[in-house]
Amino acid sequence: MNTLNNIKPETFEDTGTDELRDLLQASAAAFVVYRKQSPSQRAHFMRAVAAELDHASGTLIEVANAETNLGEERLKTELLRTMFQLRSYADACERGQHLDLRIDTATSKRPSLRKMNVPLGPVAVFGAANFPFAYSTAGGDTACAFAAGCTVIVKAHPAHAHTSELVAGAIRRAAALYHLPPAVFVHVHGRSNGIGRAIVEHPGVAAVGFTGSFQGGKQLSDWAAQRKVPIPVFAEMSSINPVFILPRKLESDMNTIVEKIAASVTLSAGQFCTNPGLLVATDDKHTATFINALADKINGTTPAVMLHPGIFKNYVEKRANALAQNAVEIRAVSSTEPGLNEGAATLAVTDADTFLSNPLLHGEVFGPYTLLVKCRDAAQVVELAAALEGQLTSTLIADEKDLLAHPLLEETVRYNCGRLIWDGVPTGVEVCLSMQHGGPWPATTDSRFTAVGADGIRRFVRPVSFQGWPDHLLPDELRDVNSTGMWRTMNNRLTDEPV
Amino acid sequence: MNTLNNIKPETFEDTGTDELRDLLQASAAAFVVYRKQSPSQRAHFMRAVAAELDHASGTLIEVANAETNLGEERLKTELLRTMFQLRSYADACERGQHLDLRIDTATSKRPSLRKMNVPLGPVAVFGAANFPFAYSTAGGDTACAFAAGCTVIVKAHPAHAHTSELVAGAIRRAAALYHLPPAVFVHVHGRSNGIGRAIVEHPGVAAVGFTGSFQGGKQLSDWAAQRKVPIPVFAEMSSINPVFILPRKLESDMNTIVEKIAASVTLSAGQFCTNPGLLVATDDKHTATFINALADKINGTTPAVMLHPGIFKNYVEKRANALAQNAVEIRAVSSTEPGLNEGAATLAVTDADTFLSNPLLHGEVFGPYTLLVKCRDAAQVVELAAALEGQLTSTLIADEKDLLAHPLLEETVRYNCGRLIWDGVPTGVEVCLSMQHGGPWPATTDSRFTAVGADGIRRFVRPVSFQGWPDHLLPDELRDVNSTGMWRTMNNRLTDEPV
Repeated sequence: MNTLNNIKPETFEDTGTDELRDLLQASAAAFVVYRKQSPSQRAHFMRAVAAELDHASGTLIEVANAETNLGEERLKTELLRTMFQLRSYADACERGQHLDLRIDTATSKRPSLRKMNVPLGPVAVFGAANFPFAYSTAGGDTACAFAAGCTVIVKAHPAHAHTSELVAGAIRRAAALYHLPPAVFVHVHGRSNGIGRAIVEHPGVAAVGFTGSFQGGKQLSDWAAQRKVPIPVFAEMSSINPVFILPRKLESDMNTIVEKIAASVTLSAGQFCTNPGLLVATDDKHTATFINALADKINGTTPAVMLHPGIFKNYVEKRANALAQNAVEIRAVSSTEPGLNEGAATLAVTDADTFLSNPLLHGEVFGPYTLLVKCRDAAQVVELAAALEGQLTSTLIADEKDLLAHPLLEETVRYNCGRLIWDGVPTGVEVCLSMQHGGPWPATTDSRFTAVGADGIRRFVRPVSFQGWPDHLLPDELRDVNSTGMWRTMNNRLTDEPV
Repeated sequence: MNTLNNIKPETFEDTGTDELRDLLQASAAAFVVYRKQSPSQRAHFMRAVAAELDHASGTLIEVANAETNLGEERLKTELLRTMFQLRSYADACERGQHLDLRIDTATSKRPSLRKMNVPLGPVAVFGAANFPFAYSTAGGDTACAFAAGCTVIVKAHPAHAHTSELVAGAIRRAAALYHLPPAVFVHVHGRSNGIGRAIVEHPGVAAVGFTGSFQGGKQLSDWAAQRKVPIPVFAEMSSINPVFILPRKLESDMNTIVEKIAASVTLSAGQFCTNPGLLVATDDKHTATFINALADKINGTTPAVMLHPGIFKNYVEKRANALAQNAVEIRAVSSTEPGLNEGAATLAVTDADTFLSNPLLHGEVFGPYTLLVKCRDAAQVVELAAALEGQLTSTLIADEKDLLAHPLLEETVRYNCGRLIWDGVPTGVEVCLSMQHGGPWPATTDSRFTAVGADGIRRFVRPVSFQGWPDHLLPDELRDVNSTGMWRTMNNRLTDEPV
């Protein structure tokens, strides 16, 4: 616990079975009201949530700081990001691109057909330990669900339950401001798996958003698939975010690359889903120099307190497991003795033959850890890329001649990740429409959707066609007169004009 | 078997285990080649498939006619629809809307980010018994997968395996014309479940399309979810397509409604996924008149040979089950004695209390069967609507005063189906962008996608972001100069201009 503040975070009892059932029923009832809100009304509500967070920011930062070990500066940045998400998804909601409006006018052979997306229903959100604001209570999943027209049930993350309670209060005040039913947002506590399971299995719940471990995401996904009526789960789970450091670029830009990689590996004690857990390079003298320089940086890192004892324990165990494998060399560990729950940054090195033959080394070690794999030649770099599981990101640190010398590398990684980075680092996930934060299994449960950016709204909507419907009975967005000014695909042509 | 022709359809051995494995591996290898084809190249290939089908149409119709009992006229229409699908999805592929192109230009704070959809990988297609052309071998799923950039593995439906073999030949000729690897399309035979399971469980397969029974779709979906790497399944399964016949409209338009409903129930021996299996009306004198008139029509129907003995047997059993329920009255059955494998059109009647308390009556009876449910009043009509499972379609036969007298009805059905029809019938599924052929479980496994219309391409793609990528190394669709002329969302604004 941070000693700079006098705040003592409260603890909360698990929500009881009966209360949970009542709350989930209330969420389903509130959905019937909330789904009628126009995109513009939803946007106003979302902006009010952002304003309430802003208003409460002092207390929010204080409590989160006491509760999480993330530090005031990072928490302030994250809270700003959370407000930006709410506001920019509100803007996107008003633009209506997520509605996929389609109009096919009547012909002599067929009636008029018009299509738009409607909300799925109540969305259950399981927030992230590492993002108490941006990917938790009023985070990306909640913002996307509200924009879609869905009500939201959040199970507070036990690691920041008090922060979550305060954020829930901000959402409740915004809901009251717009006279929405209180159950448009439901907030429950649960340290036991049983609460999560009861939420996912409740017939009123229509979709699930999750950010966390592979084990957690897989479990929710299995429960959802085994329901009488299965529901979609978008779980953002596990990724080692390979960084391919190609020889020409490495030689020409050595120092910058060392700096960037060291900073990315150790940022926030490596507790990012996009942390670069795998570095791939060719076994040559420049790579040897790079390893030495990176090892110096890692040695010089001060260990940082990790998010909570569970995450620390998990880091220590997974790292120990990886380091205990045959032919894995511990190349550098923070030289400062770590304190309680502090994760020591670690660089391990192995060769590609070892890596390729040992699946354990392909798994995520959540924390400030990276494994550099030395490949025999360019062909083995590509072979390694092809052997990886699905990833959130892949990074090429390369110049164009490097690319020519590694034919198929770009294409191989493109078909195995959600975001392809040129000459950068995977940490730092911009909130914009072009962002893809997702990827093939096990990065997420459904690679067709994103968890960041306004396209994330699409996880929680589905299309409905109106056939032969009288114009004045259609939803506003589909009527002849285009009063919303939204873009629509009319007879296969995009236009913002009326019919 | 139809006796008008001398064609004797061939039978085919199940594909062997080793051959199947080789073919699936070849499909994965062909994907690496096919995914590089530009949208325009894919479109040319798809149009060539349509041309080959056209060229072979004489033989195709003859064999399908001998194999299926659907009759020459229907088969000709269906083959034309199949070609239209291939051609119109080819056009959609070239327009590129399914690519969801997004560009966020670089700012002082962030690098350039650009996003587009890429193909998922080899798609396994399990075609429909009732659509040997349009939803089988070169049908909607295959056309969508080709447009997406995916290779396709079709398991021929055993009920029309010879037709399937001939269609596969047409696809192979088109692939050869464009020098595509033969395994861009793989065709296998399998009467045993084991073949289907082996396909779904093969690590190279990335997605599944299916049209058929609930049992079949659920099984494929379970296998896919239990894989080490689960894959998405789009299964179009089961729907009773409720038709709500409201009192004022019924009174004013009695004869037309009788004609339309009778025709829709018995069309193609009721063997459509959109067959109106449930009619809902208020228990009054006009409904009594309607039932009498509809019963006369049903009595006068000539039984038609069903698709194959399995479907006939299933119809007889499920119908018998429904009719054996308490308080279900058999109101009319075709008065002509049915011949071998002929399905007799049937109208049953019950009251809403019975229907609401008996889940068996909510299930699909695939064939020329419909159940009319009499409701006490308007409130019970809405109660019944709310109690139904997810549907492909819901139909309102109503005038505007009827709607006012049934508040919540339209909204209730809207949130429980994929297509909402005003004053029409559910049979007849137009192929256009505004079509939604899908719906909440058990209508399909994923209500967020459609099986008909070019938006069906989206089932088989996923987004990839390019961060900080040099312009000339980007895919053509994302480069500054917009050489493809496609619409792109640039800095949140739709445009077909260059950057």
